[in-house]
Amino acid sequence: MKRFSIGIIGATGATGMELLQLITERNFPIHKMHLMASPKSAGKSIQCNGKNYNIISIDQLTDEKDLDILFFCAGGDISKKWIPYFSKKNVFIIDKSSVFRMEENIPLIVPEINGLKVTGKPQLVCNPNCTATILSMALAPILNLSHFKSVLVSTYQSASGGGFAMMEELKQETRRSLNNENSQPKHLPWSYAFNLFSHHSPINEFGYNQEEWKLMEETKKILDLPELEIHATCIRVPVLRSHAETVTVEFESNRPSIPSIKKALSDFPGIKIVDDPEKMIFPMPSLSTYHDEIFIGRLRHDPIHPLKTHFFICSDQLRKGAALNAIQIAETYIASHITA
Amino acid sequence: MKRFSIGIIGATGATGMELLQLITERNFPIHKMHLMASPKSAGKSIQCNGKNYNIISIDQLTDEKDLDILFFCAGGDISKKWIPYFSKKNVFIIDKSSVFRMEENIPLIVPEINGLKVTGKPQLVCNPNCTATILSMALAPILNLSHFKSVLVSTYQSASGGGFAMMEELKQETRRSLNNENSQPKHLPWSYAFNLFSHHSPINEFGYNQEEWKLMEETKKILDLPELEIHATCIRVPVLRSHAETVTVEFESNRPSIPSIKKALSDFPGIKIVDDPEKMIFPMPSLSTYHDEIFIGRLRHDPIHPLKTHFFICSDQLRKGAALNAIQIAETYIASHITA
Repeated sequence: MKRFSIGIIGATGATGMELLQLITERNFPIHKMHLMASPKSAGKSIQCNGKNYNIISIDQLTDEKDLDILFFCAGGDISKKWIPYFSKKNVFIIDKSSVFRMEENIPLIVPEINGLKVTGKPQLVCNPNCTATILSMALAPILNLSHFKSVLVSTYQSASGGGFAMMEELKQETRRSLNNENSQPKHLPWSYAFNLFSHHSPINEFGYNQEEWKLMEETKKILDLPELEIHATCIRVPVLRSHAETVTVEFESNRPSIPSIKKALSDFPGIKIVDDPEKMIFPMPSLSTYHDEIFIGRLRHDPIHPLKTHFFICSDQLRKGAALNAIQIAETYIASHITA
Repeated sequence: MKRFSIGIIGATGATGMELLQLITERNFPIHKMHLMASPKSAGKSIQCNGKNYNIISIDQLTDEKDLDILFFCAGGDISKKWIPYFSKKNVFIIDKSSVFRMEENIPLIVPEINGLKVTGKPQLVCNPNCTATILSMALAPILNLSHFKSVLVSTYQSASGGGFAMMEELKQETRRSLNNENSQPKHLPWSYAFNLFSHHSPINEFGYNQEEWKLMEETKKILDLPELEIHATCIRVPVLRSHAETVTVEFESNRPSIPSIKKALSDFPGIKIVDDPEKMIFPMPSLSTYHDEIFIGRLRHDPIHPLKTHFFICSDQLRKGAALNAIQIAETYIASHITA
């Protein structure tokens, strides 16, 4: 079997570390692996699948000749600076940042939905915003049954979306609160302990924050529904690494039955129906965390409106929301590269 | 000034204790006060406004002749058992339980909205579910501007809705999680630490849990909109005592401007607009907790749909969600009783 030389930029971050975990779990066919991080991590080493890897700085990679796949997980500034350089090399690039996601000719990939846009040739593709990936995964199978008039979503977003720093802040602030110590937030202007808040990203001219806008625009791009009426409110909650979303879908004319929606969801790869009203078991972070699947439940028709259906999603933000989707993109590339 | 003899059933619970706090803060005109709780608390005493009150059992109240106002804050079973008895006495009863809320001839009161239904004569009135009170407070001023076609709400509910026991469980489980100790949930079948979950109340034939159904039905009753298309998803989040709600309103025909909605909300008693995109200050539990007001922000028109408007609410569940609304009902009774 052909093995691939890969590079991970941002290897010490929350997504990077999850990527290394998945590389081991999924037995990803690695020939060589280059791990890069900020200068303060350079020189350290990380274990992956029983092997030690030295952290290098990204400049040290520029000499590399036989690089096949490059993961950018280090934030928008690094992507903006380095992707133009590596795009000229013969490399398949998966960018986790939002910098290039909405550019018309750059595919925004959730492999189960639009993996065919991965050509098998070196190209730049983008990994969507976590909330958009999770929502699209739930919508795509339903969309196969009937057209949407509108989609409305409220998110319950975990700390992991802000990386290790935010996860650590949630824990530290909570510990302080439980000990009746003064709050000392570093990454937020307020305490995260037992608190929730509107997603802390800039508000645009329409009154939406960046996260909401990404969720709305990227979902439209992934599902190839540029005209979809979609609305989002993004709220950060004191949960460590699983996002949740309440979703209302209004169908254009024909509302599928609940059993047919459940069947479409169950038949779709990467989705797990967790919807047991008798045992009161529904999706929740303590179930979905460390799992690959999108957990969907509380599926019900509106009791009044004849075309609306509601449901609830939970999914590990670092898995399908970030690293898992990225590695699935790489696997899609490998499969299509081999057959190409 | 006339002073009133009151009784609080469930005085040692989260709502009861908040009621005592508010009685002091608001200088409620008390003549005598009788505090009742379960047999395990009887014999203990509680301080209120510098005075000691012995906890008695409810049977000991039945001899009482000059009782003016009775607060039931001890759950549905106690209300069901004792309200029929006290209804025959000459007492104004405020019931916090859900037992009688939807009975046609029993008013469900949010004083700012329908306080006129408090006649000033002894009667039984109900205090709504916390989520319904909070939502109705936000909707009432907007409804004065234009009719609704539909209302859609997702809740972010705090532990306090489940009383002291649930608040304590959230703290205990979180402490265990931070110390890497095993989870030992007592009141929930899973850990509440850094977790959220669909509201743990039975699911009805339509797929809605009791909390959602209360929120929907009670909001319709409070706003006197029996035909309103309203949908709710109720989620419990790891927050101690403030509820949040994302709300989408679709107007029937005429969507008011954002400034006119903000003015209507600001002019309404008990509402505080917290909506500063530049400083990124919006409603959140750490702002609303221990405050009387309903905090409203993130107010924005839908960028696509011409008749939809979205906003975000936060409010202390034990204040306006429970005890504050109850004491305001009592104050409304006193005011109308004096003028009656």
